[in-house]
This record gives sequence, structure tokens and C-alpha cells, in this order.
Amino acid sequence: MRGALDCSSGNNQKTMNRAVRILRIINAEKSEFNEDQASCGKLCIRRCEFGAEEDQEWLTLCPEEFLTGHYWALFDGHGGPAAAILAANTLHSCLRRQLEAVVEGMVAAQPPMHLSGHCICPSDPQFVEEKGIRAEDLVIGALESAFQECDEVIGRELEASGQVGGCTALVAVSLQGKLYVANAGDSRAILVRRDEVRPLSSEFTPETERQRIQQLAFVYPELLAGEFTRLEFPRRLKGDDLGQKVLFRDHHMSGWGYKCVEKSDLKYPLIHGQGRQARLLGTLAVSRGLGDHQLRVLDTDIQLKPFLLSVPQVTVLDVDQLELQEEDVVVMATDGLWDVLSNEQVARLVRSFLPGNREDPHRFSELAKMLIHSTQGKDGSPTGEGQVSYDDVSVFVIPLHSHGQGSSGH
Amino acid sequence: MRGALDCSSGNNQKTMNRAVRILRIINAEKSEFNEDQASCGKLCIRRCEFGAEEDQEWLTLCPEEFLTGHYWALFDGHGGPAAAILAANTLHSCLRRQLEAVVEGMVAAQPPMHLSGHCICPSDPQFVEEKGIRAEDLVIGALESAFQECDEVIGRELEASGQVGGCTALVAVSLQGKLYVANAGDSRAILVRRDEVRPLSSEFTPETERQRIQQLAFVYPELLAGEFTRLEFPRRLKGDDLGQKVLFRDHHMSGWGYKCVEKSDLKYPLIHGQGRQARLLGTLAVSRGLGDHQLRVLDTDIQLKPFLLSVPQVTVLDVDQLELQEEDVVVMATDGLWDVLSNEQVARLVRSFLPGNREDPHRFSELAKMLIHSTQGKDGSPTGEGQVSYDDVSVFVIPLHSHGQGSSGH
Repeated sequence: MRGALDCSSGNNQKTMNRAVRILRIINAEKSEFNEDQASCGKLCIRRCEFGAEEDQEWLTLCPEEFLTGHYWALFDGHGGPAAAILAANTLHSCLRRQLEAVVEGMVAAQPPMHLSGHCICPSDPQFVEEKGIRAEDLVIGALESAFQECDEVIGRELEASGQVGGCTALVAVSLQGKLYVANAGDSRAILVRRDEVRPLSSEFTPETERQRIQQLAFVYPELLAGEFTRLEFPRRLKGDDLGQKVLFRDHHMSGWGYKCVEKSDLKYPLIHGQGRQARLLGTLAVSRGLGDHQLRVLDTDIQLKPFLLSVPQVTVLDVDQLELQEEDVVVMATDGLWDVLSNEQVARLVRSFLPGNREDPHRFSELAKMLIHSTQGKDGSPTGEGQVSYDDVSVFVIPLHSHGQGSSGH
Repeated sequence: MRGALDCSSGNNQKTMNRAVRILRIINAEKSEFNEDQASCGKLCIRRCEFGAEEDQEWLTLCPEEFLTGHYWALFDGHGGPAAAILAANTLHSCLRRQLEAVVEGMVAAQPPMHLSGHCICPSDPQFVEEKGIRAEDLVIGALESAFQECDEVIGRELEASGQVGGCTALVAVSLQGKLYVANAGDSRAILVRRDEVRPLSSEFTPETERQRIQQLAFVYPELLAGEFTRLEFPRRLKGDDLGQKVLFRDHHMSGWGYKCVEKSDLKYPLIHGQGRQARLLGTLAVSRGLGDHQLRVLDTDIQLKPFLLSVPQVTVLDVDQLELQEEDVVVMATDGLWDVLSNEQVARLVRSFLPGNREDPHRFSELAKMLIHSTQGKDGSPTGEGQVSYDDVSVFVIPLHSHGQGSSGH
């Protein structure tokens, strides 16, 4: 395994105390254990072949490995580590199953209209061509389905065991010369090269998904139970604002307008707070992830889950098309790292660390550790920025250069 | 007026004849008249001031011009020209009204939390600052509201007069040193400079808005009345596909998967066809625009309007930040132009035409005409591409260089 992992349980005393009327902020006091979880390993996809007889079911003719890849995943839990632990133990199996279901299409020159390869309409290949459907679209589809399957498993398991909680999920899969990055939550992956820093994921938070969340509350107002307003204002309104024209945004607006404040606008906002403090229904800092099936606004029956998506956004890096350098890496990390270090700062740390440690076989692991240390306010922190993360921090450093091992060796 | 307009009613015999079961394709035979409409003019925004007494209503104290800008708009009608004509006569008034409602906020250093300027909470300016709300967000909001207001007016007017139809809308507004481009439909605006071609709008079609449209059908399945399937397949399925695993996409998928074909999958697809031929409910080639309030799938009660958005996407070009060259222009055109000319081809035509015509005071109008001629297969067409547009074509060429007149003179 060439990915380097290090997890810190940096539970430096957290002194957040933002009392919010009837609402308590989850994770305002970090729990005693590390809520980050990680897993990585080789991904072995078996081949299934269609039986000789047309009426035969799919048969596993070659149960041994057929296609291999690598898998790295980070899960940042909230409301306890249960969901993150389940995800770390489950998601890769879901993904393997989803990939095995379409692997015949993935290895064809072009995914066939019919998975069996039978051509019912002579111009079927042309229809697939015109839609621009490629093998990588099957992997993206498999990642999307795997996240949803895993979310359902977590829901069942948590209910059966009487546990609660949710987690973000950031997954990287190296397969057939491409790196797939699937993200649901506020972790982040970036590509760091000598002359380039490229984001490989976007964050999904109540702020970045404001329009989707407001739209849902517009379609299903009952989800707010009369307790919240779906409108966005620069701050929470109060009695003195009644009758005034104040800045606001609704679900269909990218810009801002003014509206005359009515009594219902004084309710607690569906999305409240700025940046790191933004919360969905006063409760959750992320808008995508796994779990949270039972999560409710404190002391109410208002559910969070209808507003959360388990489906990730997937980006594809065509590694074979990059002219790879020895020190090109992907850095994956939970929000604990990105809260205190920008993409550019991480890139500078990578570029200053790797060239001086070429002889160290563990240099990528060491780099991951160094990145974590630099968020912990340890003496000699190479950032010199003085910023300290009070959140859990987990980091993978994935070297992309394959040393002539072929693309499946990442 | 420094915008150049030319409209062609290039109704070259159109020989589209794609019979689709019970569905007729709107505009398959172009109507006899030009369905494109255009309008442009100076935009005069009056200032309203708050009365001296706190309990006074808003008063128009300075009815004369306060802020001036310029406005260009293209409307591409379908199902007749009625909606496009109404939009050309109405949208600028809606926009002026919406801008006048927020102009006090637009001219402030930062839009105030309260339009009255009263500061109810001492840190209100800080809340606005933290949200990053700028004057341009008020113009974006006004454009969004104006499109929706205009859509309501068109709905009322068409119903009152027993007319039908809809139209796309592409609007450019030059105001306070910025150019705002608002688009709802498949027209397009691009910036052409000596060394740069920059798209200023995106197209909104059943293909580009697939996920939004499928999502709506997922939430409100009754909108399809059991006649359509919301799933996407590479082609329409038929009896022979039953029981086979075929490529498909649902609302939450960016990638593709395989599903086992059931009988309900054989229904006509919610979105069908590729590229220029893609149709929403077999009927409409665009997914945003104005009008179409009465539009139904032929011989059914299935409405199109619930799937259509009247809200535009707005992009902002900071003209004052560009180091403007004499021949920097914005080209706005309906789809008739972009069907046969790429952005790069249009840019080449612009760059080859303007320098040789510096002395011609009408050169921007002439350029617009030349662009239209180059789509009509006229002799001596400078494209030499031989492609001919059978659709209506309308073009504005907007020179950005102000000849020292100040940014409001565009």
C-alpha cells in the first residue's frame, strides 16, 4: 500500500459555546474519542460472465481477481463515531459489488447498450457514442450507487443497534489509469505538482448547497414544521426589524433583494451562520454524508435527513495523461486540516518536504504526519502561521508516480 | 445607441420531419414570420428617497434620471411570436421597476442591511460584509425578479388575449461599469477580445438541465401522468429490450449504470433526443424562458410549464477592470447563429472584420449583418464552412470601448 495515513485525535480543549435558543450544536464539545475514521486497501473486482445459454442467469465464472485498483477513504463522524466506523468497514464492499455488476461494460472499448453485449438494435453503439458514454461513467455511477447503498446499510445497522450518528465520506479510487475522487461532505482532496495545485473535490455544506436546501423547504414546507424560515438574511431578524425592508435571498436567487419583514421572517433560519459556523437547522455543518437517519433538531420532531444527500460528487483525474513527476501527490484530508491550512499552504509544505527526503522509504507517511503536526501547534511547526486545529485531523498522501509498475500499481 | 442589431427572417425551407408517435415537435415547420424579437435602449433609473418622517412611506423625491445604463435583449419565440413580442415590450420596464426598488442600496458603498439606511443592530454592516453582499448582487437579484415578473405579465396577457407561445430571453445590461448578462434559454453571449474568447452565458436545455428536470418528476410523478418515464436511456426502449440490463441514468446520477428493463421503462422519455434534437416531453427544446403557461403535450393534459424556469443565470463582467481595446466586443445571438458557428469561428470573423473597417461609423452594425449573412449560405460567405442556418438569427454586437465617454456610455 503506497498511501500514507496518519490520524490525530487532537482534542485540544474546545471552548465553543454558542447557545442557540432551543438548539444545541452537534460537536460543539468534541467527544472524547476520535470521530475520524479511515480505510484503504487493494480493490479486487471479480469478473462475471454471461452463461452460454441465453436463459441462464449471470454466472461467476472467474471468481479470482480480474481488475484491481486501490481505494482510500476518510470519514469524519459527528454525533459519535458509530456511522464513521460502519462506513469504514462497509463502503469498500459496496463499491466492489457495484463495480462487479458493471465490470463487463468497463472493460469494453465502449460500454455496450446491453450489459450482455447482445446488440438488439444495430445502431446501439452509435446511440451510446452520441451520448458520450465512456467506461469512466460506469465507475462514477458505481461510486454514486455505492455511497447510497452504504448509507442504507448504516441506517439499518444504527437502528438495529440503537446507535446514532453520521459522517462525511471522501473516497479516492485508482482504477484503469484514472483516479476517481468521490466526496460527500466537507473533507477535501487536492492534487499537488511542482507547478500546479488542483482541487479534486468541492465541499458540501449548508452554505454551498443553500439553493438545493431552500428549494426542498419550498417544495415540502412541512419539513420545517412552522419552526424555521427558509429565507436567508444577513443575520437573524428580531422584533425591531418588523416592517423594515431588509436584505434577503430565496431558493431561486443567486443575487440579493430587499423584502419587508413579516412576523414569520423572525423564525430561526433554515441555514444560519457564516463559513465554519454555518448550520443546517441549527444542527449540522455538512449537507452531504452518510448516516444521520435518526437525527432531529433538539427537542423537536424535525428531521435533518430529508435535507441530506448521500450521493457524492465525483471528479476524474486522468493520471495516464499527466506527465507524472516523482513528487506528484494527492493530499486527502478531513476539514481539521483545511480549517487551518489553505491548498497553497499545503502545497508549499509538500514541495518543501519531499525533495529533502528522497531516500526515506516512508517519506509519504512522514509527510502526512508532518501535515498533521503543523495543525497541532507543536513546537517547530513548519507553517509558522500559528493556527491550531481543535478538530480531529486525518490525512492521506497518495503518490501518483508508479515507478514503472503500471497504472494499477498506485 | 451603440449596439448594433440585425435580424434575419431566414426561413429557408425547413424540412424537419421527425414524426414522434403522438407528439408533434413545436417549430418543426418554422412559422411564416420571424419568431425572434429584440429590444435595446437606455435604462433610466429614478431615485426614491425616504421621507423625513420615520412613519412616512417611500416618496419619489427625484423623479428625474438618477442612474443610467444600457439594455439589450434578444427573445427567440416558439409556438408563435406572441410571447417574444410581449417580452420585448415588457421586460425592460420590469427591470427598471426592480432596479428602482433597490437603487438606494446599489449606490451605497455597501448595500445596507435595511434599505432605509437605519442601523438597527450596530454590527449590521459587519453581517453584510461577512456575507460578501455587494451592489452587483442587488442588480443580479433585480434581473432575477424582473424575469419572473415579466413571465407573470406574459402569462396574464396571453390568457387574456387567447394567444399562446413562449420565448427564450437573453439580456445584457451595462450599469455602473459592469456588464450583466442574464440568460434563460439557448441564446448565447460571448466576449471577443484580441487574445480571448470568453463565454458570458450558459445554455439551458433539457440536456443541460437533465438532473433538475428528472428530480422534479421524481418529486411530483403526477406531472408525467403515467405517460412518460423520467429515466434516461441511450435510445427509446422497445419490447425486445424487456428483461435486458441496459444503460440508464436517474436524477441523482452523473454517471451511468445498468438496470433491468421493466415495462414502465418503455414509456416515452421525459427528455428525449440528442443535442439540437433533445426535447422536453417530446415538445420543447429549451428548459428556461418566458411564457408557455398554456403549453401541453399534444393531445394530452400534460403541462410543460412546471418544468420550465423563468429565472435566468446572471454573469457579471467587470468592464472597468478590463484593459479595454478599441475592438473588444460582446456578441449576443439567438441559437440560429450558434447552431452553425462556434465561439471561435465568430471570434475569427469579428477579428478579421473590425480592423479593416475602422473608419466606418456603422461597422458594428455591419459586423452584425455580416455574421447573419455568414449563416445564410449567401455567396461569398466568409466562413467558407458551408453550414447554413434554417432558423431565425438575431445578433447584437456591443462595443465595450467607451471612447472616453465613461463607463455609463456603453
